[in-house]
Amino acid sequence: MKTQRAIVKEKPGAGVTLKEVPIPEKLGSKEILVKVKAASICGTDIHIYDWNDWAVKNIKPPRVIGHEFAAEVVEVGKEVTSIKVGDYVSAETHIACGTCYMCKTGNKHICQNMKIIGVQTDGAFTNYLVIPEENAWLNPPDLPIEIAAIQEPLGNAVYTVLSGDVAAKDMLITGAGPIGLMAIAVAKACGAGKIIVTEVAEKRKKLAKEMGADFVIDPTKENVLSMINDLTHGLGVDVGLEMSGKESALETLLKSMKKRGRVSLLGIFDSNPNVNLNDDIIFKGLDIHGITGRLMFQTWYQIKSLLENKRIDLTKIVTHKMPLEKFEDGIALLKKGEAVKVVLYPDQKI
Amino acid sequence: MKTQRAIVKEKPGAGVTLKEVPIPEKLGSKEILVKVKAASICGTDIHIYDWNDWAVKNIKPPRVIGHEFAAEVVEVGKEVTSIKVGDYVSAETHIACGTCYMCKTGNKHICQNMKIIGVQTDGAFTNYLVIPEENAWLNPPDLPIEIAAIQEPLGNAVYTVLSGDVAAKDMLITGAGPIGLMAIAVAKACGAGKIIVTEVAEKRKKLAKEMGADFVIDPTKENVLSMINDLTHGLGVDVGLEMSGKESALETLLKSMKKRGRVSLLGIFDSNPNVNLNDDIIFKGLDIHGITGRLMFQTWYQIKSLLENKRIDLTKIVTHKMPLEKFEDGIALLKKGEAVKVVLYPDQKI
Amino acid sequence: MKTQRAIVKEKPGAGVTLKEVPIPEKLGSKEILVKVKAASICGTDIHIYDWNDWAVKNIKPPRVIGHEFAAEVVEVGKEVTSIKVGDYVSAETHIACGTCYMCKTGNKHICQNMKIIGVQTDGAFTNYLVIPEENAWLNPPDLPIEIAAIQEPLGNAVYTVLSGDVAAKDMLITGAGPIGLMAIAVAKACGAGKIIVTEVAEKRKKLAKEMGADFVIDPTKENVLSMINDLTHGLGVDVGLEMSGKESALETLLKSMKKRGRVSLLGIFDSNPNVNLNDDIIFKGLDIHGITGRLMFQTWYQIKSLLENKRIDLTKIVTHKMPLEKFEDGIALLKKGEAVKVVLYPDQKI
Amino acid sequence: MKTQRAIVKEKPGAGVTLKEVPIPEKLGSKEILVKVKAASICGTDIHIYDWNDWAVKNIKPPRVIGHEFAAEVVEVGKEVTSIKVGDYVSAETHIACGTCYMCKTGNKHICQNMKIIGVQTDGAFTNYLVIPEENAWLNPPDLPIEIAAIQEPLGNAVYTVLSGDVAAKDMLITGAGPIGLMAIAVAKACGAGKIIVTEVAEKRKKLAKEMGADFVIDPTKENVLSMINDLTHGLGVDVGLEMSGKESALETLLKSMKKRGRVSLLGIFDSNPNVNLNDDIIFKGLDIHGITGRLMFQTWYQIKSLLENKRIDLTKIVTHKMPLEKFEDGIALLKKGEAVKVVLYPDQKI
Repeated sequence: MKTQRAIVKEKPGAGVTLKEVPIPEKLGSKEILVKVKAASICGTDIHIYDWNDWAVKNIKPPRVIGHEFAAEVVEVGKEVTSIKVGDYVSAETHIACGTCYMCKTGNKHICQNMKIIGVQTDGAFTNYLVIPEENAWLNPPDLPIEIAAIQEPLGNAVYTVLSGDVAAKDMLITGAGPIGLMAIAVAKACGAGKIIVTEVAEKRKKLAKEMGADFVIDPTKENVLSMINDLTHGLGVDVGLEMSGKESALETLLKSMKKRGRVSLLGIFDSNPNVNLNDDIIFKGLDIHGITGRLMFQTWYQIKSLLENKRIDLTKIVTHKMPLEKFEDGIALLKKGEAVKVVLYPDQKI
Repeated sequence: MKTQRAIVKEKPGAGVTLKEVPIPEKLGSKEILVKVKAASICGTDIHIYDWNDWAVKNIKPPRVIGHEFAAEVVEVGKEVTSIKVGDYVSAETHIACGTCYMCKTGNKHICQNMKIIGVQTDGAFTNYLVIPEENAWLNPPDLPIEIAAIQEPLGNAVYTVLSGDVAAKDMLITGAGPIGLMAIAVAKACGAGKIIVTEVAEKRKKLAKEMGADFVIDPTKENVLSMINDLTHGLGVDVGLEMSGKESALETLLKSMKKRGRVSLLGIFDSNPNVNLNDDIIFKGLDIHGITGRLMFQTWYQIKSLLENKRIDLTKIVTHKMPLEKFEDGIALLKKGEAVKVVLYPDQKI
Repeated sequence: MKTQRAIVKEKPGAGVTLKEVPIPEKLGSKEILVKVKAASICGTDIHIYDWNDWAVKNIKPPRVIGHEFAAEVVEVGKEVTSIKVGDYVSAETHIACGTCYMCKTGNKHICQNMKIIGVQTDGAFTNYLVIPEENAWLNPPDLPIEIAAIQEPLGNAVYTVLSGDVAAKDMLITGAGPIGLMAIAVAKACGAGKIIVTEVAEKRKKLAKEMGADFVIDPTKENVLSMINDLTHGLGVDVGLEMSGKESALETLLKSMKKRGRVSLLGIFDSNPNVNLNDDIIFKGLDIHGITGRLMFQTWYQIKSLLENKRIDLTKIVTHKMPLEKFEDGIALLKKGEAVKVVLYPDQKI
Repeated sequence: MKTQRAIVKEKPGAGVTLKEVPIPEKLGSKEILVKVKAASICGTDIHIYDWNDWAVKNIKPPRVIGHEFAAEVVEVGKEVTSIKVGDYVSAETHIACGTCYMCKTGNKHICQNMKIIGVQTDGAFTNYLVIPEENAWLNPPDLPIEIAAIQEPLGNAVYTVLSGDVAAKDMLITGAGPIGLMAIAVAKACGAGKIIVTEVAEKRKKLAKEMGADFVIDPTKENVLSMINDLTHGLGVDVGLEMSGKESALETLLKSMKKRGRVSLLGIFDSNPNVNLNDDIIFKGLDIHGITGRLMFQTWYQIKSLLENKRIDLTKIVTHKMPLEKFEDGIALLKKGEAVKVVLYPDQKI
């Protein structure tokens, strides 16, 4: 049995282990085996590392983690028709059952029996992994591998931004983390009016501007509500994207909304925000959308169009590249807010 | 100066007064004077009576109250073109400025400078009042006046039910008060799948069935979540209409929703509900709509169609009819939950 | 090799043959073998019988025809998970490839590589056929088999009616053939305003009324435009469903539309209608939808809800039941307009 | 009585006259008098000049023509509240009645009793004209007057482009006249995928590229269908905007569409195109929108956002500026295809 190096959640509790694990050998008729070229670290990987409540509920160790990646197809199952050996792919990380109500009505991304790569199946912080044919996304040959690797979180950004109208609409994006920054780029590309961003970290404030934010407000230093009031002639923003998971950010965002505005919630909260439903949602006639994952696969086609037609440039989002074994460094940089996306290379010297 | 009897909020504090007030004499160029034939009591009138927080903020006594009514036009301003003396009308109660952003973009019902009849202008619990031409709604001659009077709250029900798809969708309606009951009738008329209603009051539970509910659940006696789970094959309901203003009802409703379901919030809450945003909204991909008022005037045309084509019958909703001076009796019946809609007749023996 | 009786298009040219054909033996890993209990005749079967232009282009004889049916599952492929032997099923007739752009974006019903049962694969006018697991639709046990058999065309009606708002909207349906009649029932169940139908055949005019039409107009005897003008206060209908495939019907329908109304086109035309694009579509701001097939499988869930909750009753639509061998009689009755749906029973005495 | 120079359609037949006409003196309570600073020539003005069928039906001479303009407010009616003397305005040219079904349901742009400035009321190719307060649109002080003047046709472009999703969608725009060119700029600003334009005139082909077209195809020299097929991997474009009014362009556009694509029709046709409804609309499941005017006033707010936030730059669209009396030169340049927008200045030396 051949083995490969992998980052593994070995047992409950904080931390992960770099160790040898078997290379997968059995392939279902509709599955493919891929060789990872690059894989990026997601906030979810940090939750698993830290072993937070979500991780406790969702991860059964041992598990190879990692789910954002670019790879080459090295073997295909015998009924695979749309992918062939040698293809350059990324992957949708949500594995859908295909037969539940959600799957049968165009909502595979919220399948009733969902598995997630690197969470309920072995992931991409290693050399080889098996994924369903359906989850493979064919990349154009000239797409840089580090950009190919981050298309999955880009999908969250694209789905969130485009889950309603954007063109000629003023927007507030709370939080300029990786997905917030990508959302800025997408919103700018799609004709948003004023793009206002709240963020506290200096590096991310600067990047927010570079990605296209018209105004970046630090809520610890400035009065967000009063500034938005001025910028929007007292009406508020048309669209609010919550990407911080901070209770205070959501509260500010709701008070910043124009009547009948659209709020899309992507950030996950540590505790339940205190929302004034009457004044901030009902009397205002707001629309609130909960956002999870990406549409399978409308969002991926949108990603393809935005990248292929050069409507967005994510080069600056990838702040760090490192070999797989430096994983802990990447985690540390992300926790300090010094990194945005850290891309790992399993078999390459950087 | 001629006078008329009116129910007046004379000063801050609980209670109202039946007293003589002047009949309005001055008419703007685009206003009309109407003679009230019937006026029904709204929950808002009870809030004003009780002088709750909302009333304190919104009412400047003295004020003639009442805003749901049917009337005859007795005089028209000199630039009025669409209404004439003798017309049989009801009224949209939201008076829009016509020039703000909301008014100029098809959202007069949430005008930035809104006034409400019976709240910021003198109301209908009297004989004569003045309203803008724009707010008058022409009734068909054969519409019973007690039904004509309750079209305004019917509009809330219609707007809430039809603010998303209904046909072939399972629904949960929390609360079978007047608007909840009307919503049941509208949902049934519009092809809803299973209509499930939560309610505690016996009289309303019975009426809910009569209006078309397929299942009425008493949350104080039965396990709502488990029953809905069974009724929906474990998927939850497609549409949830919150019409109770009860925190616990909202919490149950969110947990009863199918993924990507639609929630419309109409009920006003006494305090902020504790909502699990992560599990109940974001991961589920729910859509939440805040609902206020009625669309001006798409909703009124929908009302007209539903009534004219006999798709709904609201006769049983009007549980009590009484002369204007018995107003306090009406309030008492409503507070005890014995009445649903109480209609007052200002100049008629009942 | 076992054989079964089947209605077969043996060779190019008019007519079909009742003959013995092999019972299918090989089953793909995701396919199922079903035993037909009832199968209904579709207009498409008549086109194949008559060998019209469409048939010439789409059928490669020999081919067992028939695609609307109810059946029992008798064998399942080895990777089938959602269907088991003994299940009572109907079938979506569009076999989608699963990997093209349309399939990957929620539009399997217009798959780029579509095959249709009874057209590009052997069909249901026989005892046994093989279909993909994905195409099987599980019926509730108490659904009558003749109703189960006609769910496929019901799906056309449901998709057409519900491809836009219906509640409280006046409608014109041109043509009360099988799908038109089902559309009337669906529209009525879903709260349509006035339902106006144009039809020439006496039997269908009568059935249109019974299915819920408020007004049935015979365009050969009455002035459709003038009547619709009167019925809609000069505004026209909100929704127009073209279900006749008659050029003159489409022309009348467009002129009957309210500004910004919605037109859904289901009927297939013998020649290109002469449409006044400027006056009847552009200046009116109409929305026109081309409709083909049914959504896979949102429409099927809608069908299930409408039937299960008794919102529609299609009993009268099935005008004739007969053994398989009387197929030619069924065709003749349909051509004469004496039948609406003719259901064939392959192994039963009627 | 004071007079002013004006371009007047004096009588039926081709041509117009530059002559003295009275300055309007009477102002309704909700009207304003404005002094024209710049006015641009529309295709409609040419139709009136040429006295085509549309003009014969819609114009009752004598009539001052011209309807695209920028102006200063010099007097306001006594009930005007949102506009004051000295304001810098442009105008929506559709005068809506305010009381018909369309006006009461958010569709003033297709009012049942519409009047159009410069068509049914005296227009802007002069010094002073009267317009309703409602039709005035307040410009930011720094907006160049020639850009302010062409906002009305820009509104056609914006409404057409944004009458459906644009972001990440491949588009075909047939015709690069003034509105087509503006549509290119709007589509590009709003994140369209590949923007493909068909045009024959050299000058306009060049401008199309400068406004943001990715591919400009000359249908007289190249095979449009085959090129679009290649550019879209055989799928066709997601969005088609018909802006040429050419029958052949529409036919090509329909055949270029992806299944379930969106077609918006703005161009007016000289004769009825021959459309293959079955293959090109119904089986494809297309959505077709007729577009007329601009939304009142959502489109104007979108224009404001796009211009204010520098998402589009229309400077190159204004190819010629000239004094009012050179009107005939402007017409000639437009007819020869040498000009795109010609702006006239009634009281200024250029």
